[in-house]
Amino acid sequence: MTGRVPRPKASITFLPDGRTVEAEVGAHLLDTAIEAGVRIDSPCGGQGRCGRCRMKVEAGAVRRRHGPGLTRPEERDGWALACQTTVKGDVTLAVPSPDELLHAQRPEAAAEKIALPIACDWRRLPAIRKITLDIEPPSLGDNTNDLDRLRRELARQHGIENIVVGVGVLRTVSRALRESDWHVTLTLDMRNWVLGATVPPRLLGITPASSPGRNLGLSIDVGTTSVVVFLVDFDTAEVIDTASAYNRQISCGDDVISRIVYSQREGGLERLHQLVIGTINELLGEVAAREGVELTDINEVTLAGNTTMIHLFLGLDPKYIREDPYIPTVSVPPRGSAGRLGLVTNPHASVYCMPSVGSYVGGDITAGVLSSGLFMTDKMTLFIDIGTNGEMVLGNKEWLISCACSAGPAFEGGGVKDGMRATTGAIEDVWIDRATLEPTYNTIGGRSAQGICGSGLIDLLGELFVTGVIDKSGHIAGDLPTDRVREGNHGREYVVAWGREANRGQDIVITEADIDNLIRAKAAIYAGFRSLCRGVGVDLADVEQILIGGAFGQYINVEKAIDIGLMPDLPWERFHYLGNTAALGAYTALVCTEMRHEVVKIALRMTYLELSADNTFMDEYTSALFLPHTDLDSFPTVKALLAAMGRRGRHTGVGGVGAARRGSAP
Amino acid sequence: MTGRVPRPKASITFLPDGRTVEAEVGAHLLDTAIEAGVRIDSPCGGQGRCGRCRMKVEAGAVRRRHGPGLTRPEERDGWALACQTTVKGDVTLAVPSPDELLHAQRPEAAAEKIALPIACDWRRLPAIRKITLDIEPPSLGDNTNDLDRLRRELARQHGIENIVVGVGVLRTVSRALRESDWHVTLTLDMRNWVLGATVPPRLLGITPASSPGRNLGLSIDVGTTSVVVFLVDFDTAEVIDTASAYNRQISCGDDVISRIVYSQREGGLERLHQLVIGTINELLGEVAAREGVELTDINEVTLAGNTTMIHLFLGLDPKYIREDPYIPTVSVPPRGSAGRLGLVTNPHASVYCMPSVGSYVGGDITAGVLSSGLFMTDKMTLFIDIGTNGEMVLGNKEWLISCACSAGPAFEGGGVKDGMRATTGAIEDVWIDRATLEPTYNTIGGRSAQGICGSGLIDLLGELFVTGVIDKSGHIAGDLPTDRVREGNHGREYVVAWGREANRGQDIVITEADIDNLIRAKAAIYAGFRSLCRGVGVDLADVEQILIGGAFGQYINVEKAIDIGLMPDLPWERFHYLGNTAALGAYTALVCTEMRHEVVKIALRMTYLELSADNTFMDEYTSALFLPHTDLDSFPTVKALLAAMGRRGRHTGVGGVGAARRGSAP
Repeated sequence: MTGRVPRPKASITFLPDGRTVEAEVGAHLLDTAIEAGVRIDSPCGGQGRCGRCRMKVEAGAVRRRHGPGLTRPEERDGWALACQTTVKGDVTLAVPSPDELLHAQRPEAAAEKIALPIACDWRRLPAIRKITLDIEPPSLGDNTNDLDRLRRELARQHGIENIVVGVGVLRTVSRALRESDWHVTLTLDMRNWVLGATVPPRLLGITPASSPGRNLGLSIDVGTTSVVVFLVDFDTAEVIDTASAYNRQISCGDDVISRIVYSQREGGLERLHQLVIGTINELLGEVAAREGVELTDINEVTLAGNTTMIHLFLGLDPKYIREDPYIPTVSVPPRGSAGRLGLVTNPHASVYCMPSVGSYVGGDITAGVLSSGLFMTDKMTLFIDIGTNGEMVLGNKEWLISCACSAGPAFEGGGVKDGMRATTGAIEDVWIDRATLEPTYNTIGGRSAQGICGSGLIDLLGELFVTGVIDKSGHIAGDLPTDRVREGNHGREYVVAWGREANRGQDIVITEADIDNLIRAKAAIYAGFRSLCRGVGVDLADVEQILIGGAFGQYINVEKAIDIGLMPDLPWERFHYLGNTAALGAYTALVCTEMRHEVVKIALRMTYLELSADNTFMDEYTSALFLPHTDLDSFPTVKALLAAMGRRGRHTGVGGVGAARRGSAP
Repeated sequence: MTGRVPRPKASITFLPDGRTVEAEVGAHLLDTAIEAGVRIDSPCGGQGRCGRCRMKVEAGAVRRRHGPGLTRPEERDGWALACQTTVKGDVTLAVPSPDELLHAQRPEAAAEKIALPIACDWRRLPAIRKITLDIEPPSLGDNTNDLDRLRRELARQHGIENIVVGVGVLRTVSRALRESDWHVTLTLDMRNWVLGATVPPRLLGITPASSPGRNLGLSIDVGTTSVVVFLVDFDTAEVIDTASAYNRQISCGDDVISRIVYSQREGGLERLHQLVIGTINELLGEVAAREGVELTDINEVTLAGNTTMIHLFLGLDPKYIREDPYIPTVSVPPRGSAGRLGLVTNPHASVYCMPSVGSYVGGDITAGVLSSGLFMTDKMTLFIDIGTNGEMVLGNKEWLISCACSAGPAFEGGGVKDGMRATTGAIEDVWIDRATLEPTYNTIGGRSAQGICGSGLIDLLGELFVTGVIDKSGHIAGDLPTDRVREGNHGREYVVAWGREANRGQDIVITEADIDNLIRAKAAIYAGFRSLCRGVGVDLADVEQILIGGAFGQYINVEKAIDIGLMPDLPWERFHYLGNTAALGAYTALVCTEMRHEVVKIALRMTYLELSADNTFMDEYTSALFLPHTDLDSFPTVKALLAAMGRRGRHTGVGGVGAARRGSAP
C-alpha cells in the first residue's frame, strides 16, 4: 500500500448477528458488510435506487449520499443505504430481516414525505383561511344585497371588516348562499398585499358549509429540464404528493438560450408559455387522480425557476435576458392569476413567482437561499446550484453576494461527444483501477450504457486525473499500458465502455476535446467561487459550509469534484447536499407567508456580481484551467494525494490513491 | 269661449319684421307665428325633429320641450323650436333667414354637444394620467431590470413612488422601452382604490413617447331597451361622440322580468351577457370609425343601468332579483376589468358600474340623482324616471328616499292593444277636437301610424278625459256623436286612426281594457309619489322641483300627465326635463373621480322604501285609480278645468278646455 495517505481505522458492527469488521474511516458500508459476510441484497447494483440495502444506524456516525432509495424522514429515523454510505468512525448498524425490508419498502408511486426545510411559524399568518358563516336569510324588512349581507356577518362573527370580491367569484355568491341554506364556508386570501399597501382579504370561493372543500396549495419548480410540483395541505403544511416531468419546452430547445431563441419566432413565446402551463396541468392531473382531490381546491400557488423560466411562465418576452447588458423585464414579478395564466387550479388563486436577482440569478436561487437557511445563518456559507450555469451565493444572515458563471452545458452532457442527460442508461459514476486502468461504472436504471451524464463525467475526469491517465492540463498520456487509450477521429480518447457492453454499436469514449470542455466548465465555476470571495474579501478556505442545491447537485461526488478542482478543497463535512432547494423554497414560501416576504427581502438585499464586468474573473478562470488548479496549494488534500502517489503512482502497481481515499476496495 | 279658464294675454313680437300678435300665455309659438304671418317651414310636421322652425329668444321667457331638433348648447344660446315651445309672457323672437337656417343646421350624423350636467372640478384628481419619461438605458454597470428602472425614474422625475403593474401590461414593457429608445409615455390609473385602501397607481399601458395615444374614457347607459355610449376625451372632459342602439338582449325579452326568466335557461345568462357586450362593442366600432380613434385608447369605463342590466353586464345571475324578497347579488359592484368582460377597449381599463340601492332602484337612478344635482340641492326635489317601473327619489342634500312602483309596461306600449315602443310610426302626441271628437296626431318619423307609444298614450288618455270621451273611471261614454267610439271585439273602444290612414289594414284603437291598464300604471306611479312623501312627512304640494329623467321622460307632456293624475298638479315651472340622466350620471362619474365617490355615497345614504311592505301604498294606489284622482282637491287646476267645462263642455260646441289650456288653436 505504498503511497497511500494513512486513514484512521474504525470498527463496524452489524446487528442482530453482532459481526464486526475493521475498516478505514471513509469505507463504503456495502463493501464492509459484504466483507463481514452480512447477507444483503443490492438488486440495483449499488446505485442507491432500490432501497434494499438499507440498515439502521444504532450508534456511531456515518456519511450518507442522499438518493431516491430513501426518504429524508427515513434518514432522520436513522436509516442509511449501505451502498450510499461511508463510515465516519466506529458504528453499529441493525440489518433488517427480509420481512422487515418488505414492510419498510415504500410503494413505488407514493410520494416521498417532504418536510419544511427551515423552521418557520406557518400557523401564525396563514395565507388562506376557511371561514364558516351562518347568515340570516333576507326578508322584505331586511333586504340588504347578498354581498353586503355576507360582509356584515363576516364582520359580526369574525371581526373581518371588509373583503375584496372580484366579479368572477361574485358570480357564484348568490347561488351558493341559497343552495347552502345560508350556511357557507368562505375561502379567503388573508394576505392580500398590493405593493406594501395591505388591502382587505380577498374572497377566493364560497361553498356550502357542508362541503367546504380542502384547503390546498401548490408549489412548482420549473426547471429548464424538469418541472416538479408539490401539492400541499394548508391545514398541516404537509406535502401530500409530488410529481415531476420533463418540461415540455424541451421540444423547443434544451437550454435557456435556445428557448429564448425559440421565443423570438412567430408565436414562439406563446407556445413556450403554453408548453410549461401544459406540463404543470398534466402533473396536476396526475396528483389529483392519485390523491382524489379537487384541483379547484388549490387556492394559492408559488413558483420557483430561473429568470427565463419565470418569464416564459408569465408570458414575458425573455429576449433581453440574452442580449448585452442582459436585462430581465422584472425581478419581483407581480402576483399572477392562476386562471388567467391557464392553470387548472382555483382560477382565482394567486400565483407568486420567486423573485430574481438578475437575468442569471433567478427565483430558483433565491428560493434556494431561503430553503437552505443561508439567509439566517451565522456561518460563512457558500450556496451553489450547478447546471448549465453555475449559480452561487456567498454570505450569511448579514449579507449575500451572488454570481452566475456560464459553465456551458458540459455538466449536463452537452458539448461532450458521448455526454447525455441524467436519464436511463447514463453512466453516472465511474471508477478506474489504478493498476489496470480498467473502468467500472454504474448506469442510471442499471441499463446498458448509452452515454455519460454530468456526475459520471466528474467522476471520470477525477479518476482519469488521479490515476494519471490525464495530466493537469487534461492531456491524455500516450504511453499507457492499456488499449483503453487510443487515437480516435477526434484526437486521443479513453474508452469508458466498449460498444458490445454498451449495446449501442459504438464505444463510449471521452476525448481530449471533451476533457477540455469539462475543464473549462469546472474552471468557470471555481473562478466564480474565488471571484465572489475576493469581491467581499473572504478567503475561500474560511467558508464554513458549502450547501449544494439543485437536482444535479445531489449526485455530485464531492471527493471527485475536489480532485478536479470543481469544488474547493475543504473538509467533506462542510459539504451538504440539500436536494431540490428551489422546489423546497417555493414550498416554504407557500406555507409560510412571512417566508414569502423573506424571499423578496433576500432578492433585494442580494448583491449581484456581474462577472463579465469583473476583471478578476478572467484571471481566476485562467488559473483554474488546470487539474485541480494552477495553485496546487489551494488543494492541499489533492496535493498530498498526488505527492503520495509520486504522480505516477499507478505505475507502482499498488492501489490507486483515488480508490484509497474513497475507502473502498480497489 | 264659455267655460274657459281665463289666461293672461301676452304680446309676441317677431324680428326682424317686428310683427306682433297677442296670444294667451301657454300658446304654442308655431301657431302664433303662423297667425302673425311669419313665413316659417315645418317639414317634420311640428315634431321637433327637423329643427327648421328655430327662432332665437331675444327677450322674454318661453317654455321649451326638448327634442332632437335642437342641441342643449343651442338652447342655452337662446334658440327654441317654435313647434316645441310655448310662451310664458311677452316675448321677442328673432326669426332667421333661410340662409341663416341652412348654416345653423347641424350635420345629420354629428353628435350633440353634451356638457357636464353639474359643476365639478374634474381637473383636480384625474382618474387617468399620461406621463412621459426619459429613461437612462441599462448597462452592465447598471443592470436594474426594466420594471424597477421604470419605477425608479417615475419616482425621480414625478415623485410617484410606486406603481402596480399586472402581468398583462408587464408583457409589453420591455419591448416598448427599447422600441421607443427609452422615451416612453405611461398611462396610469391614478385612483386605484381597493375598498377604501389606496394602493399605488396602476399601469394601464406604455407606448413610445412619440405616439402617446389619446386619453379617452367611455360612459355607457345600458337600458333595457337602448344602450347609449359617450366617448369622452379625458383631457377636456368633453364628449367627443355618442352612439346608441337597441340593446340586443331584446331578442331574449322586452323587459327586465322576461330577461331574468331567459337568464335561467341553459346558457341564458352567458348569452344575455354576451349580447349586451356585443351591443356596446358595436357602438364602439361605430364611434371609432367616425372619429378615427383607437379603441384601445379608452382607459376607463363607467356604466349606468338598472340593477338587472348591471347584473347581466357583469355576468351575475339576476334570478333572486325577481324572487321575493327581491335581493340583488350586489349593490356597489366591484371594479371590473374591461378585457375580462369582453369590451374592445384597453383590456386593462377598469369598469365602474354605478351603484344600486336595491333590486328595483338601480345604478340608473343613482346616476340620475348624481347628474340631476338632487344630492346637493337645498330644494325639496322629486326625481322620477318612468319606464316599466316608475323609479323615484325624494329628497335634497340632507336626505334621500327612493322607491320603485311596478307600473307595468303600459307606458312602453305593452299591455295596450295598439301600443308600441317609441319607434318610427308610433303616434307620440294626440289632440282631440272637443267639438267633433276627431283626433289629430303626430307620428315618430312622420310615417303612417303603426301604433301608439307611451307619450302618445298619456296624451290620448288626457284628451279623452278632458273632452269627456271617458269618465273619471276610464269608461268610454256610449252616447257620443262620433263614429270614433264603437263596440269592438274587446269591448268599447275609441278609434285613433283609421286603417286607411294607418296603412296597416286595421284601425288603431284604444279600448277600455287599455285605458284600465293605463290608469293602473299612472296610479302606481302617483301612489309612489304620495307614499314617498308620507314616508318622510312631506306634502307633495311642497315639492319645489320635479326632475324628469330617463329617455322616455323627455317626451312626456306635463299638462296631459297632470290631467290624468300621473304627475302631481304643481305649477309647470317646477317640472324640468333632464334628458338621459343615467347616461349623464355615468359620464359625470367618468370624468370626475370625486363624483364617482359621490355616487356611491348617494347609494349608501339613500333609503329604499319597499312598497310591497308598505301598507299605505295600497290605499294610495286605490285612491289614484281615477282620473285624475279620488281626491280631486289634490288637482286644483284639473278641478278648475273640469268645473269650467261643466264636465260636459264638449257639448257646448265651444273650444275644448284641453286645447284652451294648451293655448293652441283647436
